[in-house]
Amino acid sequence: MAMVGGGPGSFIGPVHRMAAELDGKFRLVAGAFSRDAGRNAQAARAWDVASDRAYGDYRAMIAGEAARHDGAQLVAVVTPNHLHFEVAAAALQAGLHVMSDKPATLNLAEARALAGIVAASGRLYGLTHVYTGYPMVREAREMVRRGDLGRIRKIVVEYAQGWLSRPLEQGGDKQAGWRADPAQAGVGGCIGDIGTHAFNLAEFIGGAPVERLCADLAAVVPGRVLDDDCNVLLRFAGGARGVLIASQISAGGRNGLNIKVYGETGGLAWNHERHTELTVDWLDAPSQVLHAGSAYLSAPARSASRIPAGHPEGFIEAFANLYSDVADAIVAGRATADPAPGIAAGVRGMAFVERAVAASRDGAGWVALGEAA
Amino acid sequence: MAMVGGGPGSFIGPVHRMAAELDGKFRLVAGAFSRDAGRNAQAARAWDVASDRAYGDYRAMIAGEAARHDGAQLVAVVTPNHLHFEVAAAALQAGLHVMSDKPATLNLAEARALAGIVAASGRLYGLTHVYTGYPMVREAREMVRRGDLGRIRKIVVEYAQGWLSRPLEQGGDKQAGWRADPAQAGVGGCIGDIGTHAFNLAEFIGGAPVERLCADLAAVVPGRVLDDDCNVLLRFAGGARGVLIASQISAGGRNGLNIKVYGETGGLAWNHERHTELTVDWLDAPSQVLHAGSAYLSAPARSASRIPAGHPEGFIEAFANLYSDVADAIVAGRATADPAPGIAAGVRGMAFVERAVAASRDGAGWVALGEAA
Amino acid sequence: MAMVGGGPGSFIGPVHRMAAELDGKFRLVAGAFSRDAGRNAQAARAWDVASDRAYGDYRAMIAGEAARHDGAQLVAVVTPNHLHFEVAAAALQAGLHVMSDKPATLNLAEARALAGIVAASGRLYGLTHVYTGYPMVREAREMVRRGDLGRIRKIVVEYAQGWLSRPLEQGGDKQAGWRADPAQAGVGGCIGDIGTHAFNLAEFIGGAPVERLCADLAAVVPGRVLDDDCNVLLRFAGGARGVLIASQISAGGRNGLNIKVYGETGGLAWNHERHTELTVDWLDAPSQVLHAGSAYLSAPARSASRIPAGHPEGFIEAFANLYSDVADAIVAGRATADPAPGIAAGVRGMAFVERAVAASRDGAGWVALGEAA
Amino acid sequence: MAMVGGGPGSFIGPVHRMAAELDGKFRLVAGAFSRDAGRNAQAARAWDVASDRAYGDYRAMIAGEAARHDGAQLVAVVTPNHLHFEVAAAALQAGLHVMSDKPATLNLAEARALAGIVAASGRLYGLTHVYTGYPMVREAREMVRRGDLGRIRKIVVEYAQGWLSRPLEQGGDKQAGWRADPAQAGVGGCIGDIGTHAFNLAEFIGGAPVERLCADLAAVVPGRVLDDDCNVLLRFAGGARGVLIASQISAGGRNGLNIKVYGETGGLAWNHERHTELTVDWLDAPSQVLHAGSAYLSAPARSASRIPAGHPEGFIEAFANLYSDVADAIVAGRATADPAPGIAAGVRGMAFVERAVAASRDGAGWVALGEAA
Repeated sequence: MAMVGGGPGSFIGPVHRMAAELDGKFRLVAGAFSRDAGRNAQAARAWDVASDRAYGDYRAMIAGEAARHDGAQLVAVVTPNHLHFEVAAAALQAGLHVMSDKPATLNLAEARALAGIVAASGRLYGLTHVYTGYPMVREAREMVRRGDLGRIRKIVVEYAQGWLSRPLEQGGDKQAGWRADPAQAGVGGCIGDIGTHAFNLAEFIGGAPVERLCADLAAVVPGRVLDDDCNVLLRFAGGARGVLIASQISAGGRNGLNIKVYGETGGLAWNHERHTELTVDWLDAPSQVLHAGSAYLSAPARSASRIPAGHPEGFIEAFANLYSDVADAIVAGRATADPAPGIAAGVRGMAFVERAVAASRDGAGWVALGEAA
Repeated sequence: MAMVGGGPGSFIGPVHRMAAELDGKFRLVAGAFSRDAGRNAQAARAWDVASDRAYGDYRAMIAGEAARHDGAQLVAVVTPNHLHFEVAAAALQAGLHVMSDKPATLNLAEARALAGIVAASGRLYGLTHVYTGYPMVREAREMVRRGDLGRIRKIVVEYAQGWLSRPLEQGGDKQAGWRADPAQAGVGGCIGDIGTHAFNLAEFIGGAPVERLCADLAAVVPGRVLDDDCNVLLRFAGGARGVLIASQISAGGRNGLNIKVYGETGGLAWNHERHTELTVDWLDAPSQVLHAGSAYLSAPARSASRIPAGHPEGFIEAFANLYSDVADAIVAGRATADPAPGIAAGVRGMAFVERAVAASRDGAGWVALGEAA
Repeated sequence: MAMVGGGPGSFIGPVHRMAAELDGKFRLVAGAFSRDAGRNAQAARAWDVASDRAYGDYRAMIAGEAARHDGAQLVAVVTPNHLHFEVAAAALQAGLHVMSDKPATLNLAEARALAGIVAASGRLYGLTHVYTGYPMVREAREMVRRGDLGRIRKIVVEYAQGWLSRPLEQGGDKQAGWRADPAQAGVGGCIGDIGTHAFNLAEFIGGAPVERLCADLAAVVPGRVLDDDCNVLLRFAGGARGVLIASQISAGGRNGLNIKVYGETGGLAWNHERHTELTVDWLDAPSQVLHAGSAYLSAPARSASRIPAGHPEGFIEAFANLYSDVADAIVAGRATADPAPGIAAGVRGMAFVERAVAASRDGAGWVALGEAA
Repeated sequence: MAMVGGGPGSFIGPVHRMAAELDGKFRLVAGAFSRDAGRNAQAARAWDVASDRAYGDYRAMIAGEAARHDGAQLVAVVTPNHLHFEVAAAALQAGLHVMSDKPATLNLAEARALAGIVAASGRLYGLTHVYTGYPMVREAREMVRRGDLGRIRKIVVEYAQGWLSRPLEQGGDKQAGWRADPAQAGVGGCIGDIGTHAFNLAEFIGGAPVERLCADLAAVVPGRVLDDDCNVLLRFAGGARGVLIASQISAGGRNGLNIKVYGETGGLAWNHERHTELTVDWLDAPSQVLHAGSAYLSAPARSASRIPAGHPEGFIEAFANLYSDVADAIVAGRATADPAPGIAAGVRGMAFVERAVAASRDGAGWVALGEAA
């Protein structure tokens, strides 16, 4: 595989590398890690990439790899959001598979266009909504699919970070900087960065698409342009109601994603900080706690663990599960890498961002998501 | 003290008796526990109330006790909601103090009228928003007051019960029956029964009144008239945003009330199922867990515990703290029993219920709460 | 009821009063609360005990109450350990029932003698091993009795307090003072004060008596005479092994009692700081969490809760369950108040203290408990 | 690097590969994965090892790699215990570094001999006591070193697994089979397999060596020869007392390792199932919870995390930290890979196993560990 972006200072670039290589299904052999030549070379050395495969830009990289008989087959897109579309499109059109960081693109129009390109390319497109890679998230999805909880009535998903409680972007922080810049991040700040994860998780586990929403987004920290705090009411197809909370000014919050899904006969709860556990409360019976790695889990959950219960895996391994899904789909010649999310999830995520931002700005109350599931 | 309501089958009547007597500041000596003479007598016997002080109705009770030199000085109002106003008003007008179960009245008009009656009576009126009686809730309030977290930016409060996931009211369940009947419960179902607790808790800890709200209430269980599931966006005076979730169809939920309050430099979290703990997460320092009964707590929190840290008290003791506040305020001749809530909290709670119900029904989007704080 | 001890400054005296009165089965009407007349009167006033029933000493109290047609029927013994025997014996011999704080007596010889006196008296004797009063402890006992876990193989019980990490007894602390004084506390410090609770809990839930032990007791804090830290290996009748840890120098510990019981097919865990929950882990199935107040619990557990699941009770209510057991046994004319512990548990506890202290001092390795179960 | 053992069916072999490669400091290029030629080739293919570097036995592998200019520099020893010594010794003597799975050897004599070989070789020897690789374990060690808790008084370490509650070794289970066979596992069963982890962790964090012990080991499951349940009392140099519990018949237990270290002013607690957290309870202040990945941690803890707080790493990453320590020590030319454990820890672990097994069998009570720290 080859990587675009992810040079020194990147958080998610190294995660992609570790995740892709963990199961031995991919090896990082090329990249355009940084536009700065020195940093590009530094990344290549650190990751044992041959110097002639550390390219100056992604176009050269795609061309160069295409020209090799042993060229990379997959491109990991790890840039700021505004470059996701063009890099992914170029790679797909060159016949390469793509694994893109989220959100899929800068805006909905790009996402729709990319969906067309993916379809035309016949290549795999994976989107790293990493939380779908956790074993107990997959178990939760199976429980809902099997109907264990009866019809779903309510979903509450909450993603609380606190690291943007201060205006880090005004002090030169690289991670905060591009996220706070509409030109690089798009119209959504927090809603695009982590709100899309929460949205995706609710649809992934609950199984029903969001049809309508009512959003209250705010830029709480003085001087900030994009939203850093989001509260959204949801209505799902099939009648379930929901609440989505995403915030980067929940001071003291680390990376607190949790979701609760209530059906007619029970409710399940998953919390990223206790990600190896899935709690299920029942109307008339003791609560249950299911543990990752256990033999009693569903096949999709079991296959997402490498080691036995009690030996915790984590974020990198969840990420690796998405890479593994994509690798398996490539080998099997499948059109999607399910359960790993693809461009369809990307389009829905961008629709969510655009509608939530617009509706909140306009005080529009309830609006339709306006994108077919 | 004397009690109106609370006869056999009541959940909250026995709690009032235990709580009132726990600290030796009140003794239950009279009551009109049930309109059914047999059940009335049964309650009196169980609670060691003299048979001549087990009255046939509350009017007789108030008259009878007023005629005794050793008559009860306080009336506990433990009836369904629709009787709260008339019993409390009669007691106050007869010169008795009142401890009322929540919500204060059947509707906002009654609440406003009752506020006038309380003021005119010169008597104490306490409202059993029991969660304000927990030590760590009081500690949380002190932390916010002292400014430990900086300016408050966000509050998320969630109250999840599951016991009304099935239509118990259609099967003769007494507790479910009156709650599902608009004539006895008022225009709010879940929003009045537990939403008011969540609303009160957010204002109690956060210290700022709700100014505007956007509500999505639903009667999820087929055949139910009043709401059983509530999702509400909030705006507080001073600019903080919030979310209030209250539900009685969160299947598997027991009595899961939790609140998170985020300021500029940290966030606190309290969860009723772990009520002896208050967790505080900070931007740049280790998280803290404060424990009820500890010497390092604020005076209001310390005085709300009877026994040392590690010896858990609970719901009855929190309830007892409200009775204790009222007793102390009576002795001291104070006009309110703060921190125990009074009629002002009752008026705000009823305004919340009426506005949320109306706004949700009309699809009104954001509306003002419309009641001065 | 009447109380001996428990005057101003006592921790456990007020707990006995609140617990005894909580369910309306007892009323505190007399006492010899303190040898200091002023403090005795102060306690009586605080608890609404008539001044002529606040006696100067326990002998006068027993005589005075026996002479009344409405005299107290039960004496609560709330003194330091060295007086437990003589007060309890005098009360029983005067025909009164007894509820004694633990440990039962100052030493094993007294405990054996008291067992004889109880038997001869025909009166009820209850011992406040309060943890046996918690609903989920009773559920745990039922699970073991029903064989849910198969044959029991291992028990680990741990009681960690930290409040004696400093030599409080050298600074005049009343609670620490008598506990550190062999004349008042007996030969055991921590082992008698809280080790007996842990020992009792292991036998109560596990159902099998300890037969042999190997103890390592220490007085860790400089200048302290009695043990403040205890580590004990156990062998139970039937072959199970165990470990008992009790410490009052586990710095930072509040009142952390927890127990794990492992059988052939599963293990249960109860932790006092999460006392409303009982966790059960199974060999081949999801873990379970049972919640106090739930309808699915065994009858002994259900009857130990006053209010529904999610409304936490606590230490005072657990204590009250023991008083309730004794009251019910008196009414029913039963010889013991089971599940509330009685003098048999007291004798075993004193045997445990004496054997552990002696064996640890002598470096004796494994020794027999030496007292029939 | 090259690996000996770890072929198909191995649990720990794949962990070594993933861990070694995670940070890009090692690459698996050779191995003698299985004595079965087919399984050996299968492992090589799965892990992208060239077929000519998949050797038939470890001697051939060491010779073959030594003959290459690009031969492996480190050998991972992932066999059953009885082969650890000979493989490690051969590798060291051929000038290769070694990373060995624990326990270091089959018995104490071999461990002492290996210590001599390591010293003579001038090569690095790492021992995968994986729990020392967790960030919060390293933070705990730093806290003790800095004296944050005052002098250490007590350590309780507990390692509860349940997977050997049934006689799996009698049914052909590979993992259970060699562990239950004295010829392959040594004189210790559970005590060697996981007791050594617990022992190592107590010394690693507490900083003081165990001097004396009193052990109760048992083979609980019928038909089993080696111990499967261990309870051990400890005395540390400096006077601290301790308890070590290790069990593989704690039914329902997954991989529950936890440790508590109490000093004069506070106590810390770490639990593997919540490994990203370190809880510290203080005598007079709120409890603290430190989170892996936080900026406020000590340097050794910070450098053991790859990604920010709230993004959990796990077992594989902890393992990888040991490989990273060894790589860094090789590059720097250091004699040990501290904080990664080396042969000194291995010798102490084997002394612990032998003394505990002998003392328990003989009913010897307290015995000296008998090995210099």
